[in-house]
Amino acid sequence: MREALEVARQGAALGEVPVGAIIIKDGIPLARAHNEREGTKDPTAHAELIAIRLAASSVGDWRLTDTTLYVTLEPCPMCCGAIVLARIPRVIYAASDPKGGAAGTLFNLLQDERLNHQVDITQGVLAEESSQLLKSFFRDRRT
Amino acid sequence: MREALEVARQGAALGEVPVGAIIIKDGIPLARAHNEREGTKDPTAHAELIAIRLAASSVGDWRLTDTTLYVTLEPCPMCCGAIVLARIPRVIYAASDPKGGAAGTLFNLLQDERLNHQVDITQGVLAEESSQLLKSFFRDRRT
Repeated sequence: MREALEVARQGAALGEVPVGAIIIKDGIPLARAHNEREGTKDPTAHAELIAIRLAASSVGDWRLTDTTLYVTLEPCPMCCGAIVLARIPRVIYAASDPKGGAAGTLFNLLQDERLNHQVDITQGVLAEESSQLLKSFFRDRRT
Repeated sequence: MREALEVARQGAALGEVPVGAIIIKDGIPLARAHNEREGTKDPTAHAELIAIRLAASSVGDWRLTDTTLYVTLEPCPMCCGAIVLARIPRVIYAASDPKGGAAGTLFNLLQDERLNHQVDITQGVLAEESSQLLKSFFRDRRT
């Protein structure tokens, strides 16, 4: 998660909302990404979605079995949907997102028994550090 | 919707689950796409998500204001999340999806008041034609 926070900081330096994601398989990072919405003008360019696309390209399979996704903010509905579609078995996130979190806060799309895949969730890892990074980013943007 | 079904058929000819999406602004199509998951090995390559990325690239803005998304199958959680993120005001879909539909069937992510954007939904347009296309695709794949 420290590395995901570092990736998030790299995004902030480019004016992107500081969220970082890393996908690991067998201890090896398959993909690292930060948000890119402002730079790319792509509404789907969240850190998690970019990391999922990169990791799938890296393994040559749309199924990301035996992987863990680390992300510094609770994933939104789009990203949770993508995590389920990619069959990612485990997600570890830092801060919760009261405005859009779909991994336990507003929704829990990762563990809905009606969908064809469920995900183990660990939350709160370095949450305070991630929250402070986001708060400081938005505070600086307002001034 | 007839054009979206035609795009879906083009996908089926390539071995992709036949779902087609078109995004219109001021009567002009900004983007057309069918599923590409099998060809690209990208788990996020649903017709709607690809169309959203293409349309945003076409207008140079992540906000797809004043657009309508036509899609031949009810969008999944990922695609509904992307529709909300892109601020698409109107979605028209053909068949409902009892296994993963997130625009009224399993969830209604497009009209959740806790999110920062809500979407007008019209459903059932050419639904039978879309259902038959999907059924015939899966029947042919099994044989």
